[in-house]
Amino acid sequence: MSIIVLGTVALDTVKTPKGKRKNLLGGSAAHFAISARFFNQVDLVAIVGRDFPKKHIDFLEKKGIILTSLIKSDGKTFRWSGEYKGDLNTALTLSTELGVLSIFKPQIAHHQKKIKNVFLANVDPDVQMNLLKCMHSPDLVGLDSMNYWIHTKKKSLLKLLKKVDIYVANDQEARDLTGEQNLIKAARTLRAYGPRFIVVKKGEHGVLFYCDKFIFSYPAFPVEGVVDPTGAGDTFAGGFMGYLSKQKRMDEKTLKRAVFYGTILSSFNVEGFGMDKTSSLNQRAIKARLDKFKKILAF
Amino acid sequence: MSIIVLGTVALDTVKTPKGKRKNLLGGSAAHFAISARFFNQVDLVAIVGRDFPKKHIDFLEKKGIILTSLIKSDGKTFRWSGEYKGDLNTALTLSTELGVLSIFKPQIAHHQKKIKNVFLANVDPDVQMNLLKCMHSPDLVGLDSMNYWIHTKKKSLLKLLKKVDIYVANDQEARDLTGEQNLIKAARTLRAYGPRFIVVKKGEHGVLFYCDKFIFSYPAFPVEGVVDPTGAGDTFAGGFMGYLSKQKRMDEKTLKRAVFYGTILSSFNVEGFGMDKTSSLNQRAIKARLDKFKKILAF
Repeated sequence: MSIIVLGTVALDTVKTPKGKRKNLLGGSAAHFAISARFFNQVDLVAIVGRDFPKKHIDFLEKKGIILTSLIKSDGKTFRWSGEYKGDLNTALTLSTELGVLSIFKPQIAHHQKKIKNVFLANVDPDVQMNLLKCMHSPDLVGLDSMNYWIHTKKKSLLKLLKKVDIYVANDQEARDLTGEQNLIKAARTLRAYGPRFIVVKKGEHGVLFYCDKFIFSYPAFPVEGVVDPTGAGDTFAGGFMGYLSKQKRMDEKTLKRAVFYGTILSSFNVEGFGMDKTSSLNQRAIKARLDKFKKILAF
Repeated sequence: MSIIVLGTVALDTVKTPKGKRKNLLGGSAAHFAISARFFNQVDLVAIVGRDFPKKHIDFLEKKGIILTSLIKSDGKTFRWSGEYKGDLNTALTLSTELGVLSIFKPQIAHHQKKIKNVFLANVDPDVQMNLLKCMHSPDLVGLDSMNYWIHTKKKSLLKLLKKVDIYVANDQEARDLTGEQNLIKAARTLRAYGPRFIVVKKGEHGVLFYCDKFIFSYPAFPVEGVVDPTGAGDTFAGGFMGYLSKQKRMDEKTLKRAVFYGTILSSFNVEGFGMDKTSSLNQRAIKARLDKFKKILAF
């Protein structure tokens, strides 16, 4: 059973110590899809403007992403521009132009409503709720958000958290949403908000996983040549959720493996601008890095 | 063969979200010793003033630390006062009173010069060099430092780095000393400065280990109730170096195990003020947490 992802498709302009790129294909749903496609069929739900380059559409189609519910609307595509300095852990947002994103009402085909795996990538929580309400009894629902929504639409976000299985948050978001500084405490509080699985992403420091039965923590795959971390979190979510969507059991072993896949995919993501690395990957390269990661962690 | 540690013995006053404590036994050598004693005999080299409470001396002796070269000098004991806020990752130093530390010239007994395992815990790099010069062909020399020395005595520190086997640095120190933001690159540069083993401590995010043959990375042991992180790095070094000092081989398995012991010891350290937790530990509690850590990491 395939996976449906709602989120943004964007044109990103980024500057990092390694260079500058204009109008890269980006956005939460696009990064997620490019990562999750290694594990499952991905249906993408998003909106772009008339200015959206055909080459990006062709690219996504070529990568096997189902674009049935990618709306092309009058207006401009969502644009984000940011800069990374120093240790490249935090983006400084230079500008955000919502464009057509401000009028986004997700519409999906009838057959898509039956898809059992749903990922609500970062976008307005009310839009996320709209899509979730369209779905007919999904089996597995994942959610990502961002600090902006925590501060401006906390109520909507908390309502949404009651209805999802997995919440993927970065460390600062987990702290901000719960008011807990300690990440385990923050994860426990998030668990109490609803989702049975909490994944706290710590960027270059890896991931903390929390559920009622166990917690675990893994470092990131050590990457020396970080070029552009944009989309690393969405790429992680794509690997994590993509792998999980094909599994029958949600036991510790499976969830650890899902974290590994997310970790590996996001380690590739940061090695190139935009989707340079994740778009040219193959299963063999993923497997090779996974084996290397296991070797690093083995004891 | 025992281990000799040079560093500070201090009176610490700390304030954390969990409370405030005055004149706790602290200092780099003291924290190191209390941790390393679980693995080997520890000879401590440091200086205190006439005001140093007898109860702390009694405590260290009771814990089996050899105090032959703990100098008691006219003047005041080194005092540090700091505060931790928010996520407790960074200490805000409120005051530092060097006292007798400013006149410290390490003196050790003749038989101590033959000790094969040396740890130069954080103190003036010139003082570290003084001790190192006293030692007769040690087998294994570890070094810790701090940002203050990187900025004020970089030349002395670089000279020292040429003569040690292991450099234990925190992430910011590694970045500051090398000018490299990426931690793997920073570790490689530190390796080029001399030490064959580089250990980058990342606080609550665990450890990155670098040597010519392999690198590996582990998260910290997840601790929910962080009370006071003072001395966590020294406690890590004590567990790491303590374990290593008893091993014949320095292969990947051994070094990973050393990192595990450092990780476990420091996870206890942060759960109490000063040495509250590490002083009351036993081998069984260490073993139990090590097993738990392995279970968390297993895949």
